[in-house]
Amino acid sequence: MDFKTELKKYQIQIEEELEKYIRNGACPERILNSSMEYSLMAGGKRLRPILVLATYKLFKEDIEKCMPYAVAIEMVHNFSLIHDDLPAIDNDNFRHGKLTNHKKFNESTAILAGDGLLNNGYMVISEDLLNTKNPSELNKKLKIFNEFSLAVDRMIAGEYVDTEYEGKQISSEYLEYTHKNKTGELLKLCVRMGAILADCNEKDLEKLTEYAEKIGLAFQIKDDILSVEGNELITGKPVGNDEQKGKCTYVSKYGLEKAKSILEEITKDAIKITNDFGEKAEFLTNLAEYIKDRNK
Amino acid sequence: MDFKTELKKYQIQIEEELEKYIRNGACPERILNSSMEYSLMAGGKRLRPILVLATYKLFKEDIEKCMPYAVAIEMVHNFSLIHDDLPAIDNDNFRHGKLTNHKKFNESTAILAGDGLLNNGYMVISEDLLNTKNPSELNKKLKIFNEFSLAVDRMIAGEYVDTEYEGKQISSEYLEYTHKNKTGELLKLCVRMGAILADCNEKDLEKLTEYAEKIGLAFQIKDDILSVEGNELITGKPVGNDEQKGKCTYVSKYGLEKAKSILEEITKDAIKITNDFGEKAEFLTNLAEYIKDRNK
Repeated sequence: MDFKTELKKYQIQIEEELEKYIRNGACPERILNSSMEYSLMAGGKRLRPILVLATYKLFKEDIEKCMPYAVAIEMVHNFSLIHDDLPAIDNDNFRHGKLTNHKKFNESTAILAGDGLLNNGYMVISEDLLNTKNPSELNKKLKIFNEFSLAVDRMIAGEYVDTEYEGKQISSEYLEYTHKNKTGELLKLCVRMGAILADCNEKDLEKLTEYAEKIGLAFQIKDDILSVEGNELITGKPVGNDEQKGKCTYVSKYGLEKAKSILEEITKDAIKITNDFGEKAEFLTNLAEYIKDRNK
Repeated sequence: MDFKTELKKYQIQIEEELEKYIRNGACPERILNSSMEYSLMAGGKRLRPILVLATYKLFKEDIEKCMPYAVAIEMVHNFSLIHDDLPAIDNDNFRHGKLTNHKKFNESTAILAGDGLLNNGYMVISEDLLNTKNPSELNKKLKIFNEFSLAVDRMIAGEYVDTEYEGKQISSEYLEYTHKNKTGELLKLCVRMGAILADCNEKDLEKLTEYAEKIGLAFQIKDDILSVEGNELITGKPVGNDEQKGKCTYVSKYGLEKAKSILEEITKDAIKITNDFGEKAEFLTNLAEYIKDRNK
């Protein structure tokens, strides 16, 4: 199967899984539920859940075991997008080419929809833990729940630092700290969840964690590049958005050309790691290339 | 020990426990951490964690076993206060006689501090689960984690409905739905957590759940009454706040006198239940009276 077909297949599997969690009932909070659904089903790349599933598939085939964690991470990711877009934070009007949550609904609904999605992620994990009877399976999942909560903590800290230093000159250490926390920790979590669920050994877990760190950084640098030279119609976000807000990015810090060569370099590093896993890691290799070459 | 002394003793125990979770280190997100600490240590009544501990003490003495859940629930409660107070939701400037989080810091910090406290609650639970080796203890705690996430879900829904129907006439069913979800579910969770952790039997759990439902409703009605005739210097909130915002409350729905008589009635019902537990339930009896008679 070629990469694009496989990617699409994963995306469809995840969309189908997410749909199972949508609440359509008539209840006084139905608009809040619609607001959560609006963002959750707004058609993101599903990179995070795909990382969980694809890493798991390096070792095992029965990916349905990962689904609660794939769903939970996508819910939490969407919580962070809704809150990041709020007027008090990034004040963005568009996301994935659609109105942001607070523009489509209103600000109070968006705040509570974000809260709801974060909490929903934990609801999904708690259900899965409650249904796991095998003690060694449970142990793995308790470790994952703990890593999950710690990664979300880092994501919130990264978002804070990103907001706090908007419009200010920051050192390269601060830029790295922001990205590592805001984006990197969650992507790393995805890969580690897939690997841990598949009972991978310590050495492989270490290697895959390093792969995740590389693609996490690559993802952020590419985002910074797209914010300067992306096609607004494709990215769904206005070009020059970061610059206008005085965001410190890899492009504002190092210039466009240097940012691109850093991106090339770390993508190569990531692929060096997947090569150690042979043919079965082809999708993860292609995913690293895709992160570098994507246009949205 | 008299009630006030025992209440104070519990409050001190909880404050000491919460302090263990405060992060004072120098890091780029230190102001976010201060903001979380500001709200968490702003001197609330600590009713929720006290309910966990006092219910546990009906059956067992080693209350330190409950502490992670007492801490987690207080963190989540404070998350909800910070977000409720935001300009887009209740737009309140004072809480416990101090500036609200977004007034003391700023709006983006308050949003992220709320997110952080919600997530912190789950971090604390995940740590405790990871450290629980006894399988039957673990089973109880997995049930609690699940109930916890469901109660928070209901709290967020209740807050949404409360905000959505501000300034509108609503039916008594809607008023009850709002309060049951916004306040009731979390208070019920506290009592149930204490009871489940203490291995109480199904019948007692049912009775205590009913007690929690009664005091949850009493708590909300009293809040509504205090918003009309409370002493601003004591409550720390402006009198007439709810009325000004067109909030539908027990007072606006039934009038002050009728609200007071409902409060008397359900407090009596709550005490009927604690009486079944004999002398050891004296604190819970007094707590029901305290909820009815409090002036803040």
